[in-house]
Amino acid sequence: MMMRVEYSYFYCLFFWATFMSTAQEHPNLILTQKGVNEIRSHLGKVPFFDRHLSTVKAEVDAEIAAGVEVPFPKDVSGGYTHQQHKKNFFILQKAGALYQILEQVHYAAYVKEVLMAYAKMYKNLPLHPETRSYARGKLFWQCLNDANWLVYVSQAYDCIYDYLSKKERTYLEKELFRPFADFLSVGNPKFFNRINNHSTWGNAAVGMMGLVMNDEELIQRALYGLKNITIDPNSKDNDGGLIKEKGEKEGFLANIDAPFSPDGYYTEAPYYQRYAMYPFLLFSTGLENARPELKVFEYKNGVLLNAVNSLINLTDIDGEFFPLNDAQKGMSYYSRELVAAIDIAYHYGDKNPQLLSIAEYQGAVTLDDAGFEVAKAIEEGLAKPFKRKSIEFTDGPQGDEGGITVLHNGKDQKGLCLVSKYTAQGNSHGHYDKLSFMLNFKGEEVIQDYGAARFVNISQKSGGSQSGVYLDENFSFAKLTIAHNTLSVDEEVHFGRDYRVASKNHAEKYFSKLSNDGQQIISAKDHKAYPGVGMHRTLVMLQDHRLYQPLIIDLFRVESLSSHQYDLPYHYFGQLMSTNFDFQKEKNLSPLGGDNGYEHLWKLAEGKSKGGTDQFTWLYNDNFITLSMANKENDAIIFTQMGASDPNFNLRSDPSVIIRRKNTGTTLFANVIEIHGTYSTVTEAPIQSKSMIKEVSIIQDSAAYTAIRIDFIKGDPVHVILANKDNNKKTNHILNIENTPFKWKGPYFINN
Amino acid sequence: MMMRVEYSYFYCLFFWATFMSTAQEHPNLILTQKGVNEIRSHLGKVPFFDRHLSTVKAEVDAEIAAGVEVPFPKDVSGGYTHQQHKKNFFILQKAGALYQILEQVHYAAYVKEVLMAYAKMYKNLPLHPETRSYARGKLFWQCLNDANWLVYVSQAYDCIYDYLSKKERTYLEKELFRPFADFLSVGNPKFFNRINNHSTWGNAAVGMMGLVMNDEELIQRALYGLKNITIDPNSKDNDGGLIKEKGEKEGFLANIDAPFSPDGYYTEAPYYQRYAMYPFLLFSTGLENARPELKVFEYKNGVLLNAVNSLINLTDIDGEFFPLNDAQKGMSYYSRELVAAIDIAYHYGDKNPQLLSIAEYQGAVTLDDAGFEVAKAIEEGLAKPFKRKSIEFTDGPQGDEGGITVLHNGKDQKGLCLVSKYTAQGNSHGHYDKLSFMLNFKGEEVIQDYGAARFVNISQKSGGSQSGVYLDENFSFAKLTIAHNTLSVDEEVHFGRDYRVASKNHAEKYFSKLSNDGQQIISAKDHKAYPGVGMHRTLVMLQDHRLYQPLIIDLFRVESLSSHQYDLPYHYFGQLMSTNFDFQKEKNLSPLGGDNGYEHLWKLAEGKSKGGTDQFTWLYNDNFITLSMANKENDAIIFTQMGASDPNFNLRSDPSVIIRRKNTGTTLFANVIEIHGTYSTVTEAPIQSKSMIKEVSIIQDSAAYTAIRIDFIKGDPVHVILANKDNNKKTNHILNIENTPFKWKGPYFINN
Repeated sequence: MMMRVEYSYFYCLFFWATFMSTAQEHPNLILTQKGVNEIRSHLGKVPFFDRHLSTVKAEVDAEIAAGVEVPFPKDVSGGYTHQQHKKNFFILQKAGALYQILEQVHYAAYVKEVLMAYAKMYKNLPLHPETRSYARGKLFWQCLNDANWLVYVSQAYDCIYDYLSKKERTYLEKELFRPFADFLSVGNPKFFNRINNHSTWGNAAVGMMGLVMNDEELIQRALYGLKNITIDPNSKDNDGGLIKEKGEKEGFLANIDAPFSPDGYYTEAPYYQRYAMYPFLLFSTGLENARPELKVFEYKNGVLLNAVNSLINLTDIDGEFFPLNDAQKGMSYYSRELVAAIDIAYHYGDKNPQLLSIAEYQGAVTLDDAGFEVAKAIEEGLAKPFKRKSIEFTDGPQGDEGGITVLHNGKDQKGLCLVSKYTAQGNSHGHYDKLSFMLNFKGEEVIQDYGAARFVNISQKSGGSQSGVYLDENFSFAKLTIAHNTLSVDEEVHFGRDYRVASKNHAEKYFSKLSNDGQQIISAKDHKAYPGVGMHRTLVMLQDHRLYQPLIIDLFRVESLSSHQYDLPYHYFGQLMSTNFDFQKEKNLSPLGGDNGYEHLWKLAEGKSKGGTDQFTWLYNDNFITLSMANKENDAIIFTQMGASDPNFNLRSDPSVIIRRKNTGTTLFANVIEIHGTYSTVTEAPIQSKSMIKEVSIIQDSAAYTAIRIDFIKGDPVHVILANKDNNKKTNHILNIENTPFKWKGPYFINN
Repeated sequence: MMMRVEYSYFYCLFFWATFMSTAQEHPNLILTQKGVNEIRSHLGKVPFFDRHLSTVKAEVDAEIAAGVEVPFPKDVSGGYTHQQHKKNFFILQKAGALYQILEQVHYAAYVKEVLMAYAKMYKNLPLHPETRSYARGKLFWQCLNDANWLVYVSQAYDCIYDYLSKKERTYLEKELFRPFADFLSVGNPKFFNRINNHSTWGNAAVGMMGLVMNDEELIQRALYGLKNITIDPNSKDNDGGLIKEKGEKEGFLANIDAPFSPDGYYTEAPYYQRYAMYPFLLFSTGLENARPELKVFEYKNGVLLNAVNSLINLTDIDGEFFPLNDAQKGMSYYSRELVAAIDIAYHYGDKNPQLLSIAEYQGAVTLDDAGFEVAKAIEEGLAKPFKRKSIEFTDGPQGDEGGITVLHNGKDQKGLCLVSKYTAQGNSHGHYDKLSFMLNFKGEEVIQDYGAARFVNISQKSGGSQSGVYLDENFSFAKLTIAHNTLSVDEEVHFGRDYRVASKNHAEKYFSKLSNDGQQIISAKDHKAYPGVGMHRTLVMLQDHRLYQPLIIDLFRVESLSSHQYDLPYHYFGQLMSTNFDFQKEKNLSPLGGDNGYEHLWKLAEGKSKGGTDQFTWLYNDNFITLSMANKENDAIIFTQMGASDPNFNLRSDPSVIIRRKNTGTTLFANVIEIHGTYSTVTEAPIQSKSMIKEVSIIQDSAAYTAIRIDFIKGDPVHVILANKDNNKKTNHILNIENTPFKWKGPYFINN
């Protein structure tokens, strides 16, 4: 309801504002006249800015020297015409900024010459010959890329607006910009009127050009979408996502409402947020400059700037985004989108000095008001180290569709970090991974999320001819449950792999505790992913003075009246050192199963538990790590490797260990992950290569309570007790276990 | 013959010298009185030294505070008593140096207290209870570790010599040092009288203590070995090496003669050289200080200091040793042995300023004359960057047993580096890998040498209970031919896996050209590894202005009158991107073969060549790499992965591609490795993801000449022609190929 109120308020405000607007000065979109004056008066005095300015200048000068190239569109991503048009819009935007900052007219002349070449060609352009997209573009194979072009070119146009004669402007607007904006909107409602990052790009493109041209019709179209348009309710995009969900709104503001939770978490997860943030922030910056009275950065309690904060909090210590949902690993806050995001969040936000240290790492700023202020602040020594702390974000427009929790080892910024995912599905880029988690240590994945099966823009892996299209193995493996560190029941995928059902459901936080006192917990539940099966996972990050690193205690409780096969995998990296149980290595390898992603796992070996604590120690990146499992007799411990049924070697060959429990209804998996030692290939000295844990015992498991005891080689045991059905912080509990009375308040008890 | 002459000369010189020696001052072994005075007078003035001094001081202070612990020996490597005795000798050596430098008597008192504890225990010590070693120690499970102890403790004794009363010295020498030295020598002739790094440690230990005690008998024993000792000619050490080859000499000097080539290449390769260098250099430093007239650093044309040079030239740009023969990857010039080696090579050598930059990277120096001079020189700004250049080393005591060639891309210090190995066997640590090579790019292995199957000191992988003992898979895979980037004939191992035969043979350089003009070549031959099969491999590193990185052209010619199966593997890292040939992925996996290492390779897929140029492109560390193969029709291209028949997961799961040619006598494998492009996960932009090579054609292959043509996507082809039977640089050749006359001088022709 909150959303609806805000939205209407904003709507009224906007109409009031448009009445007030008059003839505009230029630039006034991303660069402003005031900002330009400030930059010009400081040229040569702010080295951080000057350095980046000269880098950009060298790049643009080289392109100008190479001459204007505006080819007739033909190629797809990776091909010549695609790359050239893409290069053009980046260079035009930069050349426009250089014209404003350096006041050298040849930059304006270059922008004009290129735009004139586009204007000459544009009106008669047919659709791009590649037919694969649900919304084909003209310059590019999909409207999305055409929208990219307009987002950047609107900035260039703004910069040289006053350099052009009125006649030239009229020509460009009539022949190029307005038809371009119309094509992206009225010409492509399926593209423009969605709740999706594609539409955000479309809305921003049309709106930004509208702001430069002072074209109210375009601005309104951008903000509120096309009206009176009907879209077939069954049409899907190339990723298999529905174009339009029932009752969805449209336009830029609605696109802010839907994918962002009130905390600023973007439901598709950080990889896509990074991409989507750019048009959100750029159009908003334009609105803030050209229509300051709208206070767009305050919309929905300032969600857009909050979203920048959530984005950087979803990176590891190397600045790489946690690879949740469809994500290519290695994308980081070094991307150009994040350079803009950090600068804008600083300039238009609360001047958080921690953002400056990220800008320092990036070594780049945008050539505009925001970037200049960041550079200046860095030179003034205002930067403070960016401190990652445990944090959590709700998911869903109203923040009531589960969420995500990041636990950091507070003692050590370069230490352990756990990400627990109990979100909604995440649109078409979501994975079937309810209650999954990943574990990162010193910037490396100890327990990995596979990410997407995709090689973005690499044509040999379908990335070129079908840019934006995923490999088959993304759908047959990477998106599916067994590819994640969560429970697979009866070798099935969550929600029966039905995207519509999955999109209507989400997990729920049960309780969490984020703190620096050494006991951090995230407990979440799901009872929808598998009909008739309730799942309750509690992940504890527990410091103990005896241990090198905090323990990760993983209590995964399953409730079911019927009997199932449960598979709980840990997708680790590294090489097996030892086990305390026997296993049999296979002499020949076969896939672990026939469907639902199981066909992609080679079964390497299997051990059978005698009950009690089974331990598996491996070495990864010079760390000794042990998984201690409180297994039931006859539990199977299966070692697998990815890459089966993968005819084109599209998957990585990563290892996994899977605990398999058969013919079971209600049960508890109690496992502990322990990074206990290190090794150096230079000193060749192992330090604490063996687990400090002697035993993990389940001492109680009822509907009401779950309790385990962890015994160590030395010293007192640790008890962890959960109240399974009462998360009230104020409830007092008394429980007798093994003749010992435990008394505590709230949903958990830990003694260590 | 040369060796014999030098040896005798040295022998005479030594006797002359011993007559000249009189009562000694102390310290006079590694630290000298002069050096100590120099250091004392500069305390607080040479920050690079002071920093390291305070680090060492803090470490020793903590140990002193923890109290003396000299436990009765019981445990093996990794266990408490082993670790404690090991820690003791490191700390004693450091405490001795601190006493001299800081003149604080409590350091001397501590050394004395510990030594007295050892003296009290030593004489009645039985052999260590662990029986596995061919030469069991007393403090440790093997004499080797006991010798380590004495090498370090002799330094400590030297430092506190004058602090002790004569009575105390007599007690220590009688109860501890002399019996200790006797045990290592007369008590263990199999250990002491070998040509092996074990004996070098033994010789140095006995000799260094002899120098401190001024005990000529020990010194002579160390230099020239035990006389009139007979060792069973069939006895072997734990690595399977023969204790004694027929006619071998013994003692420290003989150990310099045998394993080092005149260039300073150590036949076991850099990993073991690093370990062996420490006693060589330390005892030599002692001799240089206590017996300067012997000029030990000039022995065999200064081979010991040359050896430091060869060692650092066998590192990649991260300072890691090329993992040739039995080597654990990751060992580097950051090891403590190399800190000493660099300091000694600078101080006692030619003051090469490039060594100083390595000391800067190391961030540490030894607390002695040499380390102090290095620190002072660094503070004086004398350091110059260490420049890797193409270099080659002969193998064998006389330098006539093949060798090793390192080709660096001269244009770019962080670029491409190829190591071609055509050495002798390399003692018991050698691998059956004649004519193998490895390729390194920017410090990462593109085409890898597997190294050893071993986890040094990690007890779970047999490294603790049997320290120094290799995993079974070292013998069944890592040492064998198929584990290397060289030809396997009929799935056999070089020399029929017979160590005695292998040790009597070596490959031969045919010709080489190391230069900076863009054409570097190493061509080598072997006709002993497989009876009746002659192998001739030529590796070219070829710069071409059209290409991102130099090409690696690999011409592997095989001559045989009989018919064989040839397998030529490339052990690469990375993920397959594309091939231009069809292949069939296996639905279930089986080992590629039954023996000789083949049983450890899973066969993943096989393609069949139609003849012509087959290409295989992969992505590794953001680099696109293509192998272009001039294959024959029906050649098989087999993709494999390591890890089959490996019940304990002792092997890594690394991929390989193998070209298999059956039923063939004389033939040529002509392959090109091309690092042609890059990818960024941040910009997501691939640059030149596809090979620039259109075709690799064999245009001539006769006994006399081999010629190939490489056609590129754009521009002129490159021809490479080899004269196969005449490596004379002055021979003029004329050859008509495809109606074109080629004229050149010397063993090769390349036009590009």
